[in-house]
Amino acid sequence: MKPVGPIPSGYETLDGELTIGGRTASALVEEAGGTPLFVYSGALLSRRVADLRAALPGRIGINYAVKANPMPAVVTHMAPLVDGFDIASSGELAILEKVGIDPARISFAGPGKREDELEAAIAAGVTLNCESAGEAARSLAIGERIGKRPRIAIRVNPSFELRGSGMKMGGGAKQFGVDADKVPALAREVIGQGAEWRGLHIFTGSQALSAEAIVETQGNVLNLAAHLTDEIGHGLPKLNMGGGFGIPYFPGDEPLDLAEVGRALGERVADLPKALAGTELCLELGRYLAGEAGVYLCRVVDRKQSHGTTYLVTDGGLHHQLAASGNFGTVVRRNYPSAIATRYDEEPAEEVNIVGCLCTPLDRLADQAMLPRADVGDIVAVFCAGAYGATASPSAFLGHGLAREILV
Amino acid sequence: MKPVGPIPSGYETLDGELTIGGRTASALVEEAGGTPLFVYSGALLSRRVADLRAALPGRIGINYAVKANPMPAVVTHMAPLVDGFDIASSGELAILEKVGIDPARISFAGPGKREDELEAAIAAGVTLNCESAGEAARSLAIGERIGKRPRIAIRVNPSFELRGSGMKMGGGAKQFGVDADKVPALAREVIGQGAEWRGLHIFTGSQALSAEAIVETQGNVLNLAAHLTDEIGHGLPKLNMGGGFGIPYFPGDEPLDLAEVGRALGERVADLPKALAGTELCLELGRYLAGEAGVYLCRVVDRKQSHGTTYLVTDGGLHHQLAASGNFGTVVRRNYPSAIATRYDEEPAEEVNIVGCLCTPLDRLADQAMLPRADVGDIVAVFCAGAYGATASPSAFLGHGLAREILV
Repeated sequence: MKPVGPIPSGYETLDGELTIGGRTASALVEEAGGTPLFVYSGALLSRRVADLRAALPGRIGINYAVKANPMPAVVTHMAPLVDGFDIASSGELAILEKVGIDPARISFAGPGKREDELEAAIAAGVTLNCESAGEAARSLAIGERIGKRPRIAIRVNPSFELRGSGMKMGGGAKQFGVDADKVPALAREVIGQGAEWRGLHIFTGSQALSAEAIVETQGNVLNLAAHLTDEIGHGLPKLNMGGGFGIPYFPGDEPLDLAEVGRALGERVADLPKALAGTELCLELGRYLAGEAGVYLCRVVDRKQSHGTTYLVTDGGLHHQLAASGNFGTVVRRNYPSAIATRYDEEPAEEVNIVGCLCTPLDRLADQAMLPRADVGDIVAVFCAGAYGATASPSAFLGHGLAREILV
Repeated sequence: MKPVGPIPSGYETLDGELTIGGRTASALVEEAGGTPLFVYSGALLSRRVADLRAALPGRIGINYAVKANPMPAVVTHMAPLVDGFDIASSGELAILEKVGIDPARISFAGPGKREDELEAAIAAGVTLNCESAGEAARSLAIGERIGKRPRIAIRVNPSFELRGSGMKMGGGAKQFGVDADKVPALAREVIGQGAEWRGLHIFTGSQALSAEAIVETQGNVLNLAAHLTDEIGHGLPKLNMGGGFGIPYFPGDEPLDLAEVGRALGERVADLPKALAGTELCLELGRYLAGEAGVYLCRVVDRKQSHGTTYLVTDGGLHHQLAASGNFGTVVRRNYPSAIATRYDEEPAEEVNIVGCLCTPLDRLADQAMLPRADVGDIVAVFCAGAYGATASPSAFLGHGLAREILV
């Protein structure tokens, strides 16, 4: 038997079924037209932002990293809740423009921005987090050509990383940002060339569950930003402090101690380095905002035995939930939180392997999980599906098609 | 410095550039409308089938596993070359129907076939490789309901696996097929219920480079099929022997010795067990047919240094080439064969990291590779991109959009 990860709080039961936003899984599936289905809870998205606002000092704003979940309805839901949006492509810019997000609230980071992407962003008035001297030069040239002053921030490759983060974005050679020691000269150059100076972006890692590590790193980020600002010799309009707030996916994971992070950040911002006195501060969060607010629902289409092992074969799989299958940046596969949605309050009764419909042994949703007895027609829920699910999976693989998505 | 994998044979150079089908990479990119671009060579697809025909005994047919590359133009190209098509979803069936493939040439395997998929396949006259007793029962019921006799084969979960294969599909408990000892009773049941008996499907693994392992496994497959046929007590119309023929991706990989496989299979089929005397035999190959015939082209959009390391940042990445990034079923990342397409005959001059445009450190195409000096505008080629590339990657990730695809 292998444990499954911890089911996030905020999910209830009705008539024996899992409910999301007060509605049963089977009712949601019927409304959406079938499985597989991602359901995102507006109430849980809102609650997470409210928890952050309550814990963080008011001085620190919250940006939504659209890459975590670019569903237009989710973006629209987030619009009045957050201070800004971070995007990673012109495709994400197009989504934000379509739902009417003010481009002045948007910043664009990404190591391989194409010419047409730079132009679209500059034309719209989006802030570019420039990743290299070359990109800054191209941005200035495009601004010149189209007669629009580019809004430029510089993404810094810091010499420190976020300890214990699932994905490190700083420390040593990286494709992201400009090495910290090269930033002052480049900033002076873009300012001298007439760009609108928008500040610095320092992203050190993601998916950390240790408050201590996050607090330590954010302290380093503030110190580095202050030092760079002194070197640059211009006031720093804005500092994107990155994110890195993780969510529990696996057995034994403990939620981030948000109160502790908020308390420590409160102390820091009460005693900011002078260089940052007038600086707008913000965190960039994606997974932490959306991850626990989403559930992936798929239906059992076969129940079979092989050499004494029970398999529940579903109509879902790694083509929608690659990370849950353990095949995306993971070395050891562990079980995401999962359940039989249609038997949500039944006792565990058997050990099963839940697999997807793809013709590959990689396609696993839960291994050796103790769950209530399920049969063909039951609905399986995989939690923590609100971020890096639908869009971070090979949805065209084997021709099974996209999952449905609804926000409730 | 880390080596890159071996570039497949069949690629030439013209005016200093890589050519595919006699045309330069930059001409192909221009024709296709830009990068990122998958180019598939019809000549190399044809050559691979011809090599197989020359090596294999005429008694053994060749099926194309559409999942490897379902691009309609590729499927159309394969249609006159191969004997049959294996599909994994009703999405793939729709592609084959659209390009006019006779459903009698198609068989459908996959552990999680939905009711509507079973119905579409039965209605069209496609052979179902049934994966469980439950699926067989559902197929019979659907056939009854729609007044069409289902064509049923049984997929066997064999007790042996393909040694050294990249992905094992047999041996012990599996979600695929029916445990071998349960097959005879189920076969008699479906025959007794009036299905058209189409035979057995035994798939033991994929991506093996050892001729000895493949020959040994195919011997086991033939013996198992003969044994099961005796137990079933009906002639075996067809045996899908699976595939498993691998291609070299990584430094040190040696191509499969096709002549040796063909010689040994020739001996086996010259001395077939009596039970298989009238059986149609076929291999199911996907990667081996298409993998080396495809090249992924992306453009360098930035060239940067970080702490002494040179990065070529491209407009491609893991959203099109997940396996090349080392994030799909891989524990240790190694370099796929790759090159600077626009400087194909220049000498290696520097060590570079080639990365994609995604805002994640997972997005790597080549690590510490010795290559000719490239700059913004140059085109990078990643080889072995003909199978499990475009459709086996998270193409919606970060909103960068699909890659283009052309067959030349």
